[in-house]
Amino acid sequence: MPKELKVGVIGATGYTGSELLRILHGHPNCRITQVTSESHAGKKLGEVHPFLGPFLNLSLIGFEDFNQEACDVIFLALPHGVSMEFAKQLQHTGVPCIDFSGDFRLSSAEIYQDWYQKPHVWPEGIAHACYGLPEWNAERISSASLIANPGCYPTASLLALLPFAQVWGDALNRIIIDAKSGVTGAGVRPSPTTHFPGMYDNFKAYGLGGHRHTIEIQEQLQAFAPNLQPLQFTPHLLPVDRGILATLYLENLEDWSTEQTADFLKKQYQEAPFVHVVDRPPSLKDVRGSNHCLLYVQADARTRQLLLVSVIDNLVKGAAGQAIQNMNLRFGFAQEAGLHTLPLNP
Amino acid sequence: MPKELKVGVIGATGYTGSELLRILHGHPNCRITQVTSESHAGKKLGEVHPFLGPFLNLSLIGFEDFNQEACDVIFLALPHGVSMEFAKQLQHTGVPCIDFSGDFRLSSAEIYQDWYQKPHVWPEGIAHACYGLPEWNAERISSASLIANPGCYPTASLLALLPFAQVWGDALNRIIIDAKSGVTGAGVRPSPTTHFPGMYDNFKAYGLGGHRHTIEIQEQLQAFAPNLQPLQFTPHLLPVDRGILATLYLENLEDWSTEQTADFLKKQYQEAPFVHVVDRPPSLKDVRGSNHCLLYVQADARTRQLLLVSVIDNLVKGAAGQAIQNMNLRFGFAQEAGLHTLPLNP
Amino acid sequence: MPKELKVGVIGATGYTGSELLRILHGHPNCRITQVTSESHAGKKLGEVHPFLGPFLNLSLIGFEDFNQEACDVIFLALPHGVSMEFAKQLQHTGVPCIDFSGDFRLSSAEIYQDWYQKPHVWPEGIAHACYGLPEWNAERISSASLIANPGCYPTASLLALLPFAQVWGDALNRIIIDAKSGVTGAGVRPSPTTHFPGMYDNFKAYGLGGHRHTIEIQEQLQAFAPNLQPLQFTPHLLPVDRGILATLYLENLEDWSTEQTADFLKKQYQEAPFVHVVDRPPSLKDVRGSNHCLLYVQADARTRQLLLVSVIDNLVKGAAGQAIQNMNLRFGFAQEAGLHTLPLNP
Amino acid sequence: MPKELKVGVIGATGYTGSELLRILHGHPNCRITQVTSESHAGKKLGEVHPFLGPFLNLSLIGFEDFNQEACDVIFLALPHGVSMEFAKQLQHTGVPCIDFSGDFRLSSAEIYQDWYQKPHVWPEGIAHACYGLPEWNAERISSASLIANPGCYPTASLLALLPFAQVWGDALNRIIIDAKSGVTGAGVRPSPTTHFPGMYDNFKAYGLGGHRHTIEIQEQLQAFAPNLQPLQFTPHLLPVDRGILATLYLENLEDWSTEQTADFLKKQYQEAPFVHVVDRPPSLKDVRGSNHCLLYVQADARTRQLLLVSVIDNLVKGAAGQAIQNMNLRFGFAQEAGLHTLPLNP
Repeated sequence: MPKELKVGVIGATGYTGSELLRILHGHPNCRITQVTSESHAGKKLGEVHPFLGPFLNLSLIGFEDFNQEACDVIFLALPHGVSMEFAKQLQHTGVPCIDFSGDFRLSSAEIYQDWYQKPHVWPEGIAHACYGLPEWNAERISSASLIANPGCYPTASLLALLPFAQVWGDALNRIIIDAKSGVTGAGVRPSPTTHFPGMYDNFKAYGLGGHRHTIEIQEQLQAFAPNLQPLQFTPHLLPVDRGILATLYLENLEDWSTEQTADFLKKQYQEAPFVHVVDRPPSLKDVRGSNHCLLYVQADARTRQLLLVSVIDNLVKGAAGQAIQNMNLRFGFAQEAGLHTLPLNP
Repeated sequence: MPKELKVGVIGATGYTGSELLRILHGHPNCRITQVTSESHAGKKLGEVHPFLGPFLNLSLIGFEDFNQEACDVIFLALPHGVSMEFAKQLQHTGVPCIDFSGDFRLSSAEIYQDWYQKPHVWPEGIAHACYGLPEWNAERISSASLIANPGCYPTASLLALLPFAQVWGDALNRIIIDAKSGVTGAGVRPSPTTHFPGMYDNFKAYGLGGHRHTIEIQEQLQAFAPNLQPLQFTPHLLPVDRGILATLYLENLEDWSTEQTADFLKKQYQEAPFVHVVDRPPSLKDVRGSNHCLLYVQADARTRQLLLVSVIDNLVKGAAGQAIQNMNLRFGFAQEAGLHTLPLNP
Repeated sequence: MPKELKVGVIGATGYTGSELLRILHGHPNCRITQVTSESHAGKKLGEVHPFLGPFLNLSLIGFEDFNQEACDVIFLALPHGVSMEFAKQLQHTGVPCIDFSGDFRLSSAEIYQDWYQKPHVWPEGIAHACYGLPEWNAERISSASLIANPGCYPTASLLALLPFAQVWGDALNRIIIDAKSGVTGAGVRPSPTTHFPGMYDNFKAYGLGGHRHTIEIQEQLQAFAPNLQPLQFTPHLLPVDRGILATLYLENLEDWSTEQTADFLKKQYQEAPFVHVVDRPPSLKDVRGSNHCLLYVQADARTRQLLLVSVIDNLVKGAAGQAIQNMNLRFGFAQEAGLHTLPLNP
Repeated sequence: MPKELKVGVIGATGYTGSELLRILHGHPNCRITQVTSESHAGKKLGEVHPFLGPFLNLSLIGFEDFNQEACDVIFLALPHGVSMEFAKQLQHTGVPCIDFSGDFRLSSAEIYQDWYQKPHVWPEGIAHACYGLPEWNAERISSASLIANPGCYPTASLLALLPFAQVWGDALNRIIIDAKSGVTGAGVRPSPTTHFPGMYDNFKAYGLGGHRHTIEIQEQLQAFAPNLQPLQFTPHLLPVDRGILATLYLENLEDWSTEQTADFLKKQYQEAPFVHVVDRPPSLKDVRGSNHCLLYVQADARTRQLLLVSVIDNLVKGAAGQAIQNMNLRFGFAQEAGLHTLPLNP
């Protein structure tokens, strides 16, 4: 096991890519050696991400110049549909890959096609990929060759819901996830939806009834609750840059009190360095820029429901930070290596 | 019926008070004649609300100098618990009063005390007050002496839910209202919660399980569904100044399609000048600064739920604008009088 | 003079176009009869501007279907470089045109080419166009056939500076204008600069030393100060949607006191319904959504400078509102017709 | 020299205090041992700063329980006027103190009184305090017992201006600093000015002609330009949480080109790990959460002025980060120790 990994990054020009580079820069066991971009090959990284220019003196190369054998680990920070093409080409090398896209998170090529409206180019990849939620899958992650880094909404939702799926199984019903995300979740490409004057001082729901993260959450819960009723997931766009807050509604099947439920969650995550059960409703800035997830629960006796609130930074625990946490597990580093930064607040 | 009403405003220094003055300034049938403030009596209005200074040359007086007999209509823009004291003193005059607080919206002094943790000083007021939701109560409003202007969250929620309560009655169940409000909803008084650096680039849930608007919504629905199960209402604070967006979840009892449900709502509100059923999810800015409410519905066949989105400007349709709409009904003006301004967007 | 003008709008899909329609909708003497868009011809207005959909039932037509003879007045809400092509084609009709672009604001085709890097296609248009700053040019505006509506930065800057140019002439020197604008000033087209995550919680200077509004301001001041030294103008992009605040620095040539200078400005604008000299530094929201300009002045005895602050809403007094004010002057309506709305604050 | 410093923090409940704790948490050579608060003594740190609760298990004590002898270094994160009282009491211990307030930054008790409207309680402290701008005063800082950590505006301004003061001395004239700050600069205490709805989507100038940082900047420049003309400094409040951007105007006395001037600045700061001269105008987010300062310069031949833009994070390089940089210098650590975090962007 090398003390210093040579890291390759495929696709460095999006938000998850720049966030990955930003965090890796401070990782004690990593050296970024190759960074690719198809649209900006030949440029300096600072031309594409000026804020990184003074600190990271890297040149962007095209994938055809990428030498995968010279890497100890490869991150793919690409959009879904594109990533599977690259992952397929990288498979023969045996270098562990951590993929940010949705291409290897679902259980089969058929379900992928149903929700992503696109045939999958590498179904075998799905078969041997490992879902990279470290708090629930650490053992498999530690020896995986292809790690499917979870989606941002699924990360926030599953950390709240999996403990209940584990104890209550198929009895869980009418789960509602009302989630709100900052605009970086919509990516780096300008569009009318993400144009500043349209989104500022504004708020909206989108993807009602059909967002792709619905099935990702549903399938992960089904590991414990195979016959789980279809859950409801509604994403919204918040006028902030980073962060996801999910409000979750769940039938309180055993009439647990608030304290009982909080203790149940605390016990679940007592060894998890990045998940914290807190005593009052958390806010986005309580995790901004950090890899932490805060969970809050309240039992409403009047309605017999459990109300849960989960917050993460979508670019860190929801993407680049979790990917590094997965890398740490895979290479036997401390889970927290490179991820010590506290939330930036205010 | 006078062509020009002499208007008195009790409590003009909060946000709903200044918004009321801003809109009344453009009302063709109103003249603002007396404006009170206990904390700022003796000052010019422009000292308290500089943005109104160049336009409204009014002096603030104490309530002891307020001549109610010289008014044709009185607005009370006071906090709950305070308003009932003033309303009680004004009752003998017979001048119609429109109250912005929660003091006269519930069905009894007992329920008021349960939810507001305070004894009611004028239970008779509750008895003869009329709930001022014009789209559902126009006839009673048109002859009322005390109009309880609805809360901001209840306005957004009830316009979406009442049509279903009317047709499905007690069969409605597990209603969930996940609502998000701009910070003006928390009032004009500075606090750690509403301090700019704490709220900016942030988002949070609050009042989980116990917000006072819960019972207000519940009681209004019970007019049609007397045995309605307790509904779930969760408010959140958005980092914007104005606006409420409520996302509502409802069992689709008759498996209506999206189109069917939208048509049902359109028919319901075809005569309502301020409620519009729209074909894609609306956003806060679609109503900013206006008295309009936009409703959107989608039927999710996978989960057998109806998803509803309702947006209003909390200071206009959720407070001052709706109060003026109530005044228009009460005095026989066109509902839209003084309320023609289109949304300020972007 | 018709009591109701038939209004044609060329180019309705940008922010100044939608703002124009929004305000005209409430104008007592206007009926919007034709609205063009080259990129969206054939669509309903509500498809392009959903927030106007419920209120304005208009269809967008291509310019080839535009019947100019059927209009009493035509607004051109087009980008510079494009507008002059359309204006040239409209000239023969004699219908008064109000142009939003920079194409007819400068003194000659040569200077236009120097600052806009493009030859002018209709120099004669420049010759007979009238600069539409109503507070300083009302008489010419009232009979003009082509009105060049001023730029947003020039409006805020000139209302503050022209009084001093008039009294001090060429003695004025080292004028510095440090101006800050909301992002709508950059237009409706998405770009990396105006992508929400890049601009939110952010602030930047741009166009240092070379912004086109520099020469527009310079030339207008030269009407009074023909040999004025080159002024310095630095624009910045604020993370807000609307509004311009300009901070201006000026040598205090006659050592006037703050009070003297404020009185001087008040006298200058005593008849102007939209310009107000205020006693404390104004903020953007003091004018949001309105056609007003607030001016503040302070004499700094320590540095012997005058500090001026000027605020406007860039889309109203800086564009669509001022255009309507110009129309009102041109057609003999009250200047305030259709422009009574007070600032939306908070 | 201890490898691990025991750190005491006086006044931990403001924004600069929490930021100090946040950064110190990751410093390899520091252990936070005592933290005081007069208003919150007895509470856990997490009760006052919930976002730190899961990470820093510290209790707040009153100053009377503070054991200064047990500290290797003491930070005073107190408001001006208060800090000098505490500093005076701590002087006899000989433990190096780093003070965040304005109490020891000026040259004399008289000037302090002129600008702070308050008599100074410890003039001797002024005499032996050292102005803690590391890029310009490293040698004195490395042996100082009382370090006056610079103000946020002065840090951004002086890093841009001192190089010119050094070469041009008294010939410098008509310096104008138009500076814009995020709202954390106004402190943690809620007020009408910093109430969210008043500041959001808004922008304003304040303190025109009289802000206390004016004299701090003026005096530091006078080290090189003893007869410098009074400079003009105008602060503004930006609707963002963190960051200062200063736009500076300066006569270009030797008609340097943009490139020449940039090279001059680059040479000046070639050894400075936190100051970077960049090739295009920087923005606030280019430094958010980091201790870096970015400088940009442009020579405007038309006006014969130099335009400078300087950005910092007001809570890091403008307060807590710079204090740690000073501590590093004082104790012989690398300047960057604990300050490696890259800017959080987007």
